Amino acid sequence: MSPPLILLDPYPRTRELIFRSVDWERLQACGTIVTHDGEGQMPSEMVDEHIAEAALVIGQTDLPAQRLERAARLKAILNVEGNFLPNVDYETCFRRGVQVLGAGPAFALPVAEFALGLALDAARGITGGDRAFRAGEERYGLAGNHDAFLLTEAPVGFVGFGHLGRALLPLLQPFRPRIRVYDPWLPDGYLREHGAMPAPLDELLGCSRVVFVLAGVTRENRGMIGARELALMPDGAVLLLISRAPVVDWEAFLAATRSGRLRGATDVFPEEPVAGDDPVRDNDHLILSAHRAGGLREALYRIGEMATDDAQLLLADLPPVRMQPARRETVGRLRSTPGRTYPEGSDR
Amino acid sequence: MSPPLILLDPYPRTRELIFRSVDWERLQACGTIVTHDGEGQMPSEMVDEHIAEAALVIGQTDLPAQRLERAARLKAILNVEGNFLPNVDYETCFRRGVQVLGAGPAFALPVAEFALGLALDAARGITGGDRAFRAGEERYGLAGNHDAFLLTEAPVGFVGFGHLGRALLPLLQPFRPRIRVYDPWLPDGYLREHGAMPAPLDELLGCSRVVFVLAGVTRENRGMIGARELALMPDGAVLLLISRAPVVDWEAFLAATRSGRLRGATDVFPEEPVAGDDPVRDNDHLILSAHRAGGLREALYRIGEMATDDAQLLLADLPPVRMQPARRETVGRLRSTPGRTYPEGSDR
Amino acid sequence: MSPPLILLDPYPRTRELIFRSVDWERLQACGTIVTHDGEGQMPSEMVDEHIAEAALVIGQTDLPAQRLERAARLKAILNVEGNFLPNVDYETCFRRGVQVLGAGPAFALPVAEFALGLALDAARGITGGDRAFRAGEERYGLAGNHDAFLLTEAPVGFVGFGHLGRALLPLLQPFRPRIRVYDPWLPDGYLREHGAMPAPLDELLGCSRVVFVLAGVTRENRGMIGARELALMPDGAVLLLISRAPVVDWEAFLAATRSGRLRGATDVFPEEPVAGDDPVRDNDHLILSAHRAGGLREALYRIGEMATDDAQLLLADLPPVRMQPARRETVGRLRSTPGRTYPEGSDR
Amino acid sequence: MSPPLILLDPYPRTRELIFRSVDWERLQACGTIVTHDGEGQMPSEMVDEHIAEAALVIGQTDLPAQRLERAARLKAILNVEGNFLPNVDYETCFRRGVQVLGAGPAFALPVAEFALGLALDAARGITGGDRAFRAGEERYGLAGNHDAFLLTEAPVGFVGFGHLGRALLPLLQPFRPRIRVYDPWLPDGYLREHGAMPAPLDELLGCSRVVFVLAGVTRENRGMIGARELALMPDGAVLLLISRAPVVDWEAFLAATRSGRLRGATDVFPEEPVAGDDPVRDNDHLILSAHRAGGLREALYRIGEMATDDAQLLLADLPPVRMQPARRETVGRLRSTPGRTYPEGSDR
Repeated sequence: MSPPLILLDPYPRTRELIFRSVDWERLQACGTIVTHDGEGQMPSEMVDEHIAEAALVIGQTDLPAQRLERAARLKAILNVEGNFLPNVDYETCFRRGVQVLGAGPAFALPVAEFALGLALDAARGITGGDRAFRAGEERYGLAGNHDAFLLTEAPVGFVGFGHLGRALLPLLQPFRPRIRVYDPWLPDGYLREHGAMPAPLDELLGCSRVVFVLAGVTRENRGMIGARELALMPDGAVLLLISRAPVVDWEAFLAATRSGRLRGATDVFPEEPVAGDDPVRDNDHLILSAHRAGGLREALYRIGEMATDDAQLLLADLPPVRMQPARRETVGRLRSTPGRTYPEGSDR
Repeated sequence: MSPPLILLDPYPRTRELIFRSVDWERLQACGTIVTHDGEGQMPSEMVDEHIAEAALVIGQTDLPAQRLERAARLKAILNVEGNFLPNVDYETCFRRGVQVLGAGPAFALPVAEFALGLALDAARGITGGDRAFRAGEERYGLAGNHDAFLLTEAPVGFVGFGHLGRALLPLLQPFRPRIRVYDPWLPDGYLREHGAMPAPLDELLGCSRVVFVLAGVTRENRGMIGARELALMPDGAVLLLISRAPVVDWEAFLAATRSGRLRGATDVFPEEPVAGDDPVRDNDHLILSAHRAGGLREALYRIGEMATDDAQLLLADLPPVRMQPARRETVGRLRSTPGRTYPEGSDR
Repeated sequence: MSPPLILLDPYPRTRELIFRSVDWERLQACGTIVTHDGEGQMPSEMVDEHIAEAALVIGQTDLPAQRLERAARLKAILNVEGNFLPNVDYETCFRRGVQVLGAGPAFALPVAEFALGLALDAARGITGGDRAFRAGEERYGLAGNHDAFLLTEAPVGFVGFGHLGRALLPLLQPFRPRIRVYDPWLPDGYLREHGAMPAPLDELLGCSRVVFVLAGVTRENRGMIGARELALMPDGAVLLLISRAPVVDWEAFLAATRSGRLRGATDVFPEEPVAGDDPVRDNDHLILSAHRAGGLREALYRIGEMATDDAQLLLADLPPVRMQPARRETVGRLRSTPGRTYPEGSDR
Repeated sequence: MSPPLILLDPYPRTRELIFRSVDWERLQACGTIVTHDGEGQMPSEMVDEHIAEAALVIGQTDLPAQRLERAARLKAILNVEGNFLPNVDYETCFRRGVQVLGAGPAFALPVAEFALGLALDAARGITGGDRAFRAGEERYGLAGNHDAFLLTEAPVGFVGFGHLGRALLPLLQPFRPRIRVYDPWLPDGYLREHGAMPAPLDELLGCSRVVFVLAGVTRENRGMIGARELALMPDGAVLLLISRAPVVDWEAFLAATRSGRLRGATDVFPEEPVAGDDPVRDNDHLILSAHRAGGLREALYRIGEMATDDAQLLLADLPPVRMQPARRETVGRLRSTPGRTYPEGSDR
């Protein structure tokens, strides 16, 4: 029996960005790898030449129904990004038993660490204090801590509880928080068994001192946190926009933080890169981060490690355990912008 | 029997800064409180008038040997600062069985949270990224994360392991760190039972990606981390100066971070306030914080709560459990600057 | 549109055993429930009458290919036992997109608690000490603790790491264990990200003071721990047989514990009930438990809660999150004995 | 300067029982050791010969006031048992600045592990199930679990919160318990900062499914849990008597468990050894343990490790950190029976 064929099409990553040499060697030992080293995606003719023999496709290759029909040996598609983009005809995959896996989990821990860093920074004014210091306007000790508060025992809210929320929750445990979660896709019992408290969005916003926005964008939740919702939050509360900008009403978020009534941080913006003269750049009560929460060298290597692990399992007829399977019910609901990588991604 | 007399002399704090009304009421129920509401310390004549009857002194009152000899009913002195200053004749207290308690533990958790915030900030470049963003120089995603690393599983070092270290350690647990500790006052078995790994200073510096300086200043450890020691740290490692500036050789620390070889953060400075033209203000690889790690409203209230709790216990002839007892062996070794509050203090 | 039809066939459970009234009310609100209240399984003609309309089947109903072909509206089969028995034509389900869910996760926590209880009991001789006491042969203090050891920092091994292992691992965390895991279906990176250390079986047995057997039975692992393997374990080590008896060579296990060289506990037996004169009943170094680790009232209610939660999600076209999906690769490999409930089940 | 003299008088232990060779070598390196290898305590004349020169006494040597007055160089007395017995004139020690240290902390973790083992055993009927199995009366699965309950999320009560309670609490954390604590010597704020909930005794008994009795005996708490208090506990609740028998009214405790209304376990008895015909031996709902919770080889070695560590610190004029200092306020209140070792001891 000939070794299985693996089509590797890492664009918009490169092979070197996602595979450490140890993982690359393990992957090579799995079968015959056909890859494209040049610019851009694997050319269409190259895909067409090999797709009938491919056991695995690793990448964001275009796989419409007609191409999938020819892929008689295909076991799985291992997406190297955090989202499920419309490059694949998912329905055909589900029907045919071709698994589609995403790399979202590789980003969960890096984003969770970053989110905790932002929360502590916002609660204690670390970035703002440093800025004041450089301007010669620092205030020492208690005088500089007017708005500061402890995270320990602070009421916390999570908007969304996918793998990002599940990665963040243990990092918060030592702070003995009371964590309310709003996630309309999850039953209360699921949240409780993870040690969180299910809550409606309004209650969560009204009761929490620190709110983490962790939800992917769906058709239903666009602009879900608007002026009315922000007005529910107590004075001095902190909102951390981690997952996707469209979940909040951007202008309302900027207004609530510009005035200083709320404070916050954001890693995502409606348009990236942000225009040079965008007034967000002067917002004193917002920590600004250029979509850096997940896109870490270690996270990218983790994609390669996970993909290699799951490739080995799939080729041994065992179930993959590291990447995230696309699910029929939600793959069409998540609205990612093709051509734009939101690495923290949706996570269900 | 008349109610016990409590001398309350909160300077340099004020009563309102340290006692929430609930604790103030509890304290009043403990006995007769003699306090001084005006500027500065309690006047000498006022102390002298009441010291012979006092069961407790709460504050930084001058208590030389001759005054203590007159204090026949004195059970304890409850210091409302983080350090044991030379205002008390400790030897007389130990001989006489007068307990001397310090408020250091009130600051441990606030400082520990701040230290973790600085560590995540430095590891991921949160403050630096915000500064770049405001200057219109932000870099998105992976391009902005050249130096970033995860805290999870990073090797970590603690220089000093008093109550500050003991408060920080549980906050790090979810990151599954390997924590080396250097503390010449503590036996290896003590460190191991706290889940840390004892290590010589040089090994700790050479192996750790993140080093927390948590030691109080003693006669022995001034300038302990100098150019030689900093040179042992790996490229890109992070040093967080949390407890006291004199533990490091300041010029060496600035030089190592200015070049970018190391990164760091500091909450303490050799002279505070820092001069307006001090070049530290332009150090790009250092997060600057104006001695704000401990001096939080909540921490000050905690002093009042702890002092009230221990006052109740002492007056009921039970051992105090919340404040930190001065210990004969170390009270003279810790070098605090009188008149300057270092709230994070020594911690043993 | 008419409400969805739910076929409820709880045998060998009963409705009252698995549904608390609150969950039963929630389930009734989901649609029209057709159930069978009499003895045994739902009669064949009753299934046939309704299967074409059913959106969900909750139970162990026989669902061969021809019946499934008629089930045009069927979204999912919610198995109320811990195992995937051969009552369903799984291949047809996978092809058709009918999800098959199992109740295994409901038993993970109860079994994990029990397993920890057995481990502490075996390490400290609780059951044996009580038996000696009742016989008037107790020995006090140190004299009775000849073989006792602490769990804290003891090397621990897990044979198998499905949801049972994942439920047990956090219960062990406070003991700061070094946990080796042998699971040939899982990549090393997966184990490491759960904080465990991958190890070959021989190394695990040779290095561990406490070994938990947590694996389901497959074609490959029957008798996997035999005389040779047991001989690798250090003197006085403890083996806890939690999941399924056939994973060990039963006679070898009994011999190694009867001599006292190893100690252990077992909740499972090759034949249940055990014969009245089975010599296992006199084995002094084995704690005997009559398949009681999982079959707890609370666990059964949890099945009802989970099934109701997932039924709600499925009927709202959202992915189920509480029960365990059957996976094409493994559903045929796990060897459960039809007609015999092993509630702790396989767990992948 | 001559090396310091250490008087080692390990009775009722022996040197080999408490010192591993590594610790014994470390201790020998600290100074000149004078010890007594024969039967019983160090003879009086031997103590008198050396006491004037001794820097440390390790053991339970009789040290009345007149002997202490001669001990001009004595820094500390390191008691190798868990309790502070009346062999020392404590008042003289406090006045003279001679530290008195106890070995109680060496037993905290072993006792805590045992207590958790008893709790899981009682909640799930492990010992009782094994007994039934040996009698051929086992019941399988759910039928055998009539009274069983999960520890996870069960309400738990601690009577007493010294170092034993503090060692047990982290072992319970993964069970996400709600822990009520009754300890009249501790302020509410202290309990809250340890993550426990202060409660009056009656509320604790009325609300808890599992009650751990962890308090040492004092003049005030003898028989504190009597028939009235036991009647407050809910049907089927579990009481674990870990620390000292006199804290409960023994007959009331036996009556409440004999009937099966409550279940429990005890490691301590009013008289030890228990008489051969004591009816406690037939109590079906009580797990019987012959004072074995603490007296473990590893715990005894820990005494030697701790004593050596603290000896090193004391001789270097540093504060001891591992053993437990006697406190003036409580050393006279704890009622240990001289001549009888209760290793888990009092712990404050």
